[in-house]
Amino acid sequence: MTEQEQPGAIMQREVNEQPEALARLLDSELKNIHDVADKIKARNPRFVMLNARGTSDHAAQYFKYLVEITMGIPVGLSSPSVFTAYDVTPKYDDVVWVSVSQSGGSPDLVEATEKARSAGALTIAVTNATDSPLANASELNIDVVAGPEKAVAATKSFTNQLLALYLLGDAWNGGDGSAAQAVPGFAQQVVDAKDATAVAGRYRFAEKMITTGRGYAYPIAREGALKLMETTYLAAQPFSSADLMHGPMAMVDPGHPVVAVVPEGIGGEAIQPVLDRLKENNADVLVVGDQARAGDAAAFIPLPQGMPEEISPIIQIIPLQQLAHDIAVQRGNNPDAPRGLRKVTETR
Amino acid sequence: MTEQEQPGAIMQREVNEQPEALARLLDSELKNIHDVADKIKARNPRFVMLNARGTSDHAAQYFKYLVEITMGIPVGLSSPSVFTAYDVTPKYDDVVWVSVSQSGGSPDLVEATEKARSAGALTIAVTNATDSPLANASELNIDVVAGPEKAVAATKSFTNQLLALYLLGDAWNGGDGSAAQAVPGFAQQVVDAKDATAVAGRYRFAEKMITTGRGYAYPIAREGALKLMETTYLAAQPFSSADLMHGPMAMVDPGHPVVAVVPEGIGGEAIQPVLDRLKENNADVLVVGDQARAGDAAAFIPLPQGMPEEISPIIQIIPLQQLAHDIAVQRGNNPDAPRGLRKVTETR
Repeated sequence: MTEQEQPGAIMQREVNEQPEALARLLDSELKNIHDVADKIKARNPRFVMLNARGTSDHAAQYFKYLVEITMGIPVGLSSPSVFTAYDVTPKYDDVVWVSVSQSGGSPDLVEATEKARSAGALTIAVTNATDSPLANASELNIDVVAGPEKAVAATKSFTNQLLALYLLGDAWNGGDGSAAQAVPGFAQQVVDAKDATAVAGRYRFAEKMITTGRGYAYPIAREGALKLMETTYLAAQPFSSADLMHGPMAMVDPGHPVVAVVPEGIGGEAIQPVLDRLKENNADVLVVGDQARAGDAAAFIPLPQGMPEEISPIIQIIPLQQLAHDIAVQRGNNPDAPRGLRKVTETR
Repeated sequence: MTEQEQPGAIMQREVNEQPEALARLLDSELKNIHDVADKIKARNPRFVMLNARGTSDHAAQYFKYLVEITMGIPVGLSSPSVFTAYDVTPKYDDVVWVSVSQSGGSPDLVEATEKARSAGALTIAVTNATDSPLANASELNIDVVAGPEKAVAATKSFTNQLLALYLLGDAWNGGDGSAAQAVPGFAQQVVDAKDATAVAGRYRFAEKMITTGRGYAYPIAREGALKLMETTYLAAQPFSSADLMHGPMAMVDPGHPVVAVVPEGIGGEAIQPVLDRLKENNADVLVVGDQARAGDAAAFIPLPQGMPEEISPIIQIIPLQQLAHDIAVQRGNNPDAPRGLRKVTETR
């Protein structure tokens, strides 16, 4: 970070680079992703295990929905401590093991991958660093080509992870990736609209916040909460909309605002009963997504219409990144230098 | 709830009933659990999928660690919306599908189970209601025999779920459940000690809290956070200790207290670097568990020594239940009647 820059200038620049980074991925990686998908198909796996932490874990969770919904193959999220803290001999011969990491540097992910690979899993690393320990430990590699990411709060690496994983699932299903060609354009619309800026002021003095979504939108609610925690330090809690009904709804009052990611289509339909219940409880709700479900929400950020639901998460996160950035700057924080954090987190 | 009772009396009674409920399970269900384990072994499953929400989901997550660590079999947590909101044909013929639910009444869990069963999974319901829709939808049943649970915040049903799942994993591994015979006695020690009461006053005016644990203790950190949210309405956020390092650490300051579940053994060792980092960041930490790792933590609640790590979660949750109850009562809330919640949550 150059000393002259405004607080948050690095994160802002990387948020704005997303359309370009997404286009770069479509231009340069489609062929490799199809090759990886062919190798997965040749192995005819029975199970997918995902290996990731933090922001990358949210991209992995998106892939869980994609694989389970479009292929019916069960998917699990690995618990790296199972491999690193405990002494385990996994039975993984018909497992595809997909690691997702920006830096490819976290030792626990590397060690878990080594154990999964020696137990017979087909290992794939989706990283922004194909010469990293994680990429080297994996049999196959997908480069998300987000370019160097300097802000501690990951943005463009996340949207490129999502697109790479969408393309991998699509290729595995026999698709040609054509539906994704519209993604950079959708992203540009949201970047240019900057609708989050007008809303950010409402949360200047908020102490806590809930984010929620269901199906494909749930990992986005999680990532949105993480961006808010990293940059604004407010206590942002993500819940799947169904889990929100099982307990946490008790916390919701007009002083505990809710951000709901509400896509068009099935995901939006599935969240409607939760929106109704929030209204009964006089919750303060920001709807991000479908105008038709914004009702009398306290605030609304529109998303482009006509996006297929599997693709919409790539776009949904952008206003949440902008929101986190803008709230942080308005509070006098520097989103480029969150206290207590390092860009590469080394957990064992 | 009878009108004459003190706020929280029902929850308090059910917390105190836990030793008795655990003993009842050991007395009456061991034979059935061994029969279920035999049927699992006969199917030689390749994967386990867990189907649960809320508190029961935390019991399910404990079972994920148990199966992955002791058997090396990959485990996934189902996303019910995959089955209920989206139209999926799962490939589940070598999957064991374990549903966990107190009431057995949530329609989404039932529908997902029906789809898993018709796709070939061996379906097992672990419930406190063996005549429930979920139990009826499942091929095999385990009754957690916690007795009627009247408080909205689940307590004794959770500890009995944990014990039932421990016994199931142990039987699957060829054990005879003998290590669990000490559990009711450990639970009685913690119930009688009431160490949480002395600590609760520290959090009288807290607005938010972080809970953390790793390995077997992580689901307990999650359940502890849920109890706090349900009864005290403070924003309690659970993180695996490794994930806490990836972003949320930025939120931690002396006004944002942390509760760390720190067992003896490997789980405690694995969390030590996180305790060190919290200290660097001047965090206010309550250690629950191992005195040897309490160091100069702001507060400490001891747990009985010499518990095997796989068993200790059943005991770890008890002081967190007590803490949630006591903070709620001190704040003038009624933990027996959390606002906006119902005992049986119906999500679709």
